[in-house]
Amino acid sequence: MYEIMLCLSGDEKKNLYEQIYEYIRGEIRQGRIRCGERLPSTRLLAEQLDVSRSTAQMAYEQLLSEGYIEAVPCKGYFVCEMDELYHLEQDLSVSEERTEEKAENCRYDFTPNGIDLDHFPYAIWRKLSREVLKDDQKELFHLGDPKGEYALRKAICSYLHQARGVNAQPSQIVIGAGNDYLQMLLSRMLGTKQRIAMESPGYRHAYDIFQRLGYDCCTVSMDRSGMNMKELGESGADIAYVMPSHQYPMGIVMPVRRRQELLQWAAMKEERYIIEDDYDSEFRYVGKPIPSLQGSDTCQKVIYIGTFSKSITPSLRISYLVLPAGLLERYEQVGRSFSCTVSRTDQKMLQLFMERGYFERHLNKMRALYRNKHDILLAQLKQMQGIKKIFGERSGVHLLVQMADKRTEKELADCAWKAGIRVYPLSEYSLNGSSCEATMILGYATMKEGEIREAAELLGKSWEKKI
Amino acid sequence: MYEIMLCLSGDEKKNLYEQIYEYIRGEIRQGRIRCGERLPSTRLLAEQLDVSRSTAQMAYEQLLSEGYIEAVPCKGYFVCEMDELYHLEQDLSVSEERTEEKAENCRYDFTPNGIDLDHFPYAIWRKLSREVLKDDQKELFHLGDPKGEYALRKAICSYLHQARGVNAQPSQIVIGAGNDYLQMLLSRMLGTKQRIAMESPGYRHAYDIFQRLGYDCCTVSMDRSGMNMKELGESGADIAYVMPSHQYPMGIVMPVRRRQELLQWAAMKEERYIIEDDYDSEFRYVGKPIPSLQGSDTCQKVIYIGTFSKSITPSLRISYLVLPAGLLERYEQVGRSFSCTVSRTDQKMLQLFMERGYFERHLNKMRALYRNKHDILLAQLKQMQGIKKIFGERSGVHLLVQMADKRTEKELADCAWKAGIRVYPLSEYSLNGSSCEATMILGYATMKEGEIREAAELLGKSWEKKI
Repeated sequence: MYEIMLCLSGDEKKNLYEQIYEYIRGEIRQGRIRCGERLPSTRLLAEQLDVSRSTAQMAYEQLLSEGYIEAVPCKGYFVCEMDELYHLEQDLSVSEERTEEKAENCRYDFTPNGIDLDHFPYAIWRKLSREVLKDDQKELFHLGDPKGEYALRKAICSYLHQARGVNAQPSQIVIGAGNDYLQMLLSRMLGTKQRIAMESPGYRHAYDIFQRLGYDCCTVSMDRSGMNMKELGESGADIAYVMPSHQYPMGIVMPVRRRQELLQWAAMKEERYIIEDDYDSEFRYVGKPIPSLQGSDTCQKVIYIGTFSKSITPSLRISYLVLPAGLLERYEQVGRSFSCTVSRTDQKMLQLFMERGYFERHLNKMRALYRNKHDILLAQLKQMQGIKKIFGERSGVHLLVQMADKRTEKELADCAWKAGIRVYPLSEYSLNGSSCEATMILGYATMKEGEIREAAELLGKSWEKKI
Repeated sequence: MYEIMLCLSGDEKKNLYEQIYEYIRGEIRQGRIRCGERLPSTRLLAEQLDVSRSTAQMAYEQLLSEGYIEAVPCKGYFVCEMDELYHLEQDLSVSEERTEEKAENCRYDFTPNGIDLDHFPYAIWRKLSREVLKDDQKELFHLGDPKGEYALRKAICSYLHQARGVNAQPSQIVIGAGNDYLQMLLSRMLGTKQRIAMESPGYRHAYDIFQRLGYDCCTVSMDRSGMNMKELGESGADIAYVMPSHQYPMGIVMPVRRRQELLQWAAMKEERYIIEDDYDSEFRYVGKPIPSLQGSDTCQKVIYIGTFSKSITPSLRISYLVLPAGLLERYEQVGRSFSCTVSRTDQKMLQLFMERGYFERHLNKMRALYRNKHDILLAQLKQMQGIKKIFGERSGVHLLVQMADKRTEKELADCAWKAGIRVYPLSEYSLNGSSCEATMILGYATMKEGEIREAAELLGKSWEKKI
């Protein structure tokens, strides 16, 4: 029988039983106690080490539960048989990532992504959070409906109906943590055998995600009404991903006729679908909002995807699908197992935000704010020398500019860069590498009004010189 | 030229321009204005309808932007050509779901899922939320790191190291909205060609999710040390999904030897991985926590998946992966595109909750609480007549009971049900339909201590009668 030679220290942070357990474990691991060897009884061990019997018992129980020793009735404790031992030391070669962003020498950034966060309704959000996190809201801490909370889906339906002409019932809504996740979920419902046609220039992130999900993605070029129908027809695609209300980045609003052509294309085959990405239709500065494509769909062919990333904040991580009837069944079969990815308290806060009219007020405030920024930028650009064409304005938070001279996008971007301004060449949004006339994208959401004025003036000068 | 015959009403809610726009749109849709037809100029229209010229202009612009009409320079406005029109009326046959749960005649529910929410730290959570939702935390409202916030990943690492013996750096952690989502993300990194071996009886939800994700899942039966290695070897699987710290539902703690065998099995082929689901290891009532399998893995073979669903609340929707080095590269290639599914404010709240010691205190409180419930149930069961064996106790929030007589699980469940008690037959957790000795699962997290006492007593009586 193996004898325990351990010197217990009384002032260590560890309990006595832990010291005994760790000592014996170490001895076993290092092979100093051989397998099959019998350990002293708890009574004997307690005597040897001058500890209580229950301390010895606890040490053995830990070794038992981790499988180092086993208890044989009426015989005692024995060291288990085990093969060559793994060691805890681990290869720590995994390199630590850098967390800092590289600081750029950029004074003004005309990024078309990003939103104005100076006017986020922090106080209201705090108030709602206080209300939702009360003890009497206990049911909110249980797991909720996989589709998302019914009350929030109802609020979304009613918003979509009024603001976007979307015809949907709460049962058709599936809430998820961001568009990427919803694309993933959608791929479970649709399968990944279909070819997906994407607009080019277009939204590269959605294209990348579909590719990562295993889809065969093809690109279809844009004419002035949107996705080119002839090319779509010849592409062999069965799913078309479009942004009819305000195409990103071209800013095109798809006219009724092209919408009908698209719907007819979809109606021609049972498995065809249109994915309508309605990412920033809330912001339209002239006239009424353009109704959604989904609202004109009588054949249950449009899968509508909406988000609160642009209208509230991207960090909220709440998007939603509006599924056509045919896919609802598929959702029940394959999608319902996946638990909802948005916390119930966040859902409840958004629901109250919508129900109590805060969302509408926030949208109106932001629309006015973005319209001002839009108007300032547009006014400045119209004074600028050498501009040939401005388009994609009146909606969203970016517009596009073409210069009259023959400079390339790179030359224009370089000129701007030297003046401390970042602008975005359209060709970067081309998904098929095809080039077009040099066009620069200017986003204005993240800059303050004064900054837009300064930046546009500076930009004008930087582009002027070379003409 | 088409003449507009419209009677404008001044007291309607709609603007004049909207009334004009809607009227003309209706005329076009119903074919009363033919395609190619010229509309009156804005000057003429304004005169005809006695409105301002800008009102007429706005109505036309809306029609232009939606593609109903087009402007031909120096000629005027013409109705666009369009095919047979779709109508907005939609088939509203999608049936509305029922939102109420069916009320069950069940007084006591020994569910092994669910947690005790009476002791959720609502006040602290509210305090943190107030702090996080301040205006000066603006950066929290931008989109964050796809892996999750660095500071939270660091807090998780340090917790995992101390409490679970997990060796990881923050770069190895990927935060996501729940295990289902993380399984989905993992499937992007691993591909779906492998066969996955699952423990049976086991965690059916994870099994279903893997199947939905397109995996070929097989089941391996459990012996008293956990997953049967011989069966695993013969299964043809390259991924083993195990719960070594406290198997669900069997309650088995995998002994060191079986852990080593598993690690050796994984080391034999490059593409082999072990997924360690460490779902409720925080709750262990006797001795120290069982260290994680990941901590003994020297070959970068263990993918660790952890969650705050059991330790904080399932509605929080925060889980995480600890990726081995080999998969980190794969993550960079295919996983990084997917934006993080957890909102940054929720991440920040959890980070502060962990950093400031609230999490530790909460765990200690809950452990004591569950231990009490565990002890009460165990004491009651030990007094119960006709019980042959109790196992899976000392950890987690459920235990298992076998009766000495030959009644089937159904008979036992029916007896309990008649007394208003819901218990859970083990065979429901069998993933391969194989049967074993009649065993009932009793979870005790959601009941109050008094209820556990009452329920166990009542259960004893309901099972006694038939012996």
